[in-house]
Amino acid sequence: MSFDRLIAKITATKNPTVLGLDPKLDYIPNEIKEEAYKTHGKTLEGAADALLRFNKALIDAVHDIVPAVKPQAAYYEMYGWQGVRTLAETITYAQKKGMFVVVDGKRGDIGATMEAYADGWLGTTDVEGETFTPFGGDALTVNGYLGTDCIEPLVKVCKKQDKGIFVLAKTSNPSSGELQDIKINDKTIYETMATLCDKWGETLPGKHGYSGVGVVVGATYPEQLTELRSKFPKLFFLVPGYGAQGGGGKEVAGAFDKNGMGAIINASRSLMCAWQKAPGKSLAEATRAEAIRMREDIT
Amino acid sequence: MSFDRLIAKITATKNPTVLGLDPKLDYIPNEIKEEAYKTHGKTLEGAADALLRFNKALIDAVHDIVPAVKPQAAYYEMYGWQGVRTLAETITYAQKKGMFVVVDGKRGDIGATMEAYADGWLGTTDVEGETFTPFGGDALTVNGYLGTDCIEPLVKVCKKQDKGIFVLAKTSNPSSGELQDIKINDKTIYETMATLCDKWGETLPGKHGYSGVGVVVGATYPEQLTELRSKFPKLFFLVPGYGAQGGGGKEVAGAFDKNGMGAIINASRSLMCAWQKAPGKSLAEATRAEAIRMREDIT
Repeated sequence: MSFDRLIAKITATKNPTVLGLDPKLDYIPNEIKEEAYKTHGKTLEGAADALLRFNKALIDAVHDIVPAVKPQAAYYEMYGWQGVRTLAETITYAQKKGMFVVVDGKRGDIGATMEAYADGWLGTTDVEGETFTPFGGDALTVNGYLGTDCIEPLVKVCKKQDKGIFVLAKTSNPSSGELQDIKINDKTIYETMATLCDKWGETLPGKHGYSGVGVVVGATYPEQLTELRSKFPKLFFLVPGYGAQGGGGKEVAGAFDKNGMGAIINASRSLMCAWQKAPGKSLAEATRAEAIRMREDIT
Repeated sequence: MSFDRLIAKITATKNPTVLGLDPKLDYIPNEIKEEAYKTHGKTLEGAADALLRFNKALIDAVHDIVPAVKPQAAYYEMYGWQGVRTLAETITYAQKKGMFVVVDGKRGDIGATMEAYADGWLGTTDVEGETFTPFGGDALTVNGYLGTDCIEPLVKVCKKQDKGIFVLAKTSNPSSGELQDIKINDKTIYETMATLCDKWGETLPGKHGYSGVGVVVGATYPEQLTELRSKFPKLFFLVPGYGAQGGGGKEVAGAFDKNGMGAIINASRSLMCAWQKAPGKSLAEATRAEAIRMREDIT
């Protein structure tokens, strides 16, 4: 299943990190933006094209040393359907370059609706007998607040299409504890969620011991990372919050198993904006240097 | 604030219902589909165009007797960015016809990302000093699992742009209880969520007593509807699950306050597919007749 493909890429690059693609216009070098505006004007379309050009440049810079990308849907949706088209084209481009794509959409809805999300983001859609791939991501982040029947349709698509999901357990933000840390019989809500994920993943076993249902656990909560790692050996972790949000190599160490496997660490701003802190270096050089620094910090 | 605008429309139409726009190709009359395929082929683009034509026909049929529509993002995303363009055009069309638009996206993410969702779905986006409205919904459904810092950016946009949000409390699906019904000190998670919503809504007071932060409570849980209505007089309810999911007029009665206000009831399939059960009637006639039947069932 899907996380085996991810694990193979991590092993090949010796790098358990993912390039978060949450682009903002402020992060993009002027020459890239000017090219886009020349064709489409200073419009949503122009902005969306600038994001696409920027994403492609970042992917070109690191695709052979970073195994995965994680585009965050919100940063595309804010530019309307034109931005969503850029998201689709980014996914296709990253995969063409050999990268694994985690779509960060945190979708979550009742069964029938979740089927539509599953088809859209990971699977295929039929139009009068013809089959199309709307977005074609390799994995999707998911909010499990609605429970089992919101996850089952995704698991079915994952099984059929060799894909995976990451369910929010303990998120990286300051107020994540308000609901997630509530304890009942000594068990927090985030642990309850992880327990459900363990169950949901049973039909998606992987050859390295990790199922196709993983969890999101923030780098900003190193104790919970370590706790969940030891309690849930089958759950692959997606760990946001490294870099700009405050987590470092030390904070994320607890996310890995004794073989250094079982987690992938996301960095967005620190990679996307590396060129702004490296005068004299090109975008490609600066991004690549930061990706190597991050890999060494983590491994 | 926003729910005052919604309440004014409900009062004018004497109808607390919302037309759920979760279209599927199977729901669409052949002649509408053929028109779309003639122009765009049997492709994602053709399907997206069929959805748009169908939505417009439904809106035309009921815009003067139904105050609001609720398009569900998943059913557009499954047709790729072309589907998302149809979503944007549906929102614009419904508003032009005087309807209030609740975008059902159940978005939820950390602060900075939520700002991007807020700008995208309810607010505006700047491109080099020019302001654009990517989707321009009137309200958005939201998943609050991440806590306060995921909601604050939305509340800020709601205040500035006169919009509202509906946060998931007790959802309509069978397994909603797995997490939402967990009790701590006699307080369920869904009640905890509603309590947070009460707090989040404090800066968005409305002239009818309802704040701009409402909750989603399923018609399939009439006891919880009644319980939450009596405990949270300031929370406006969005109630899905009427009709095809099993809830009827009796089941949703508890959602309303003593003036018959405070809730809006969604029906999707029963309205969108009314024409299939009414041979001899046009799409417009059948949809309108079902909308009137539903209004009378509820009021």
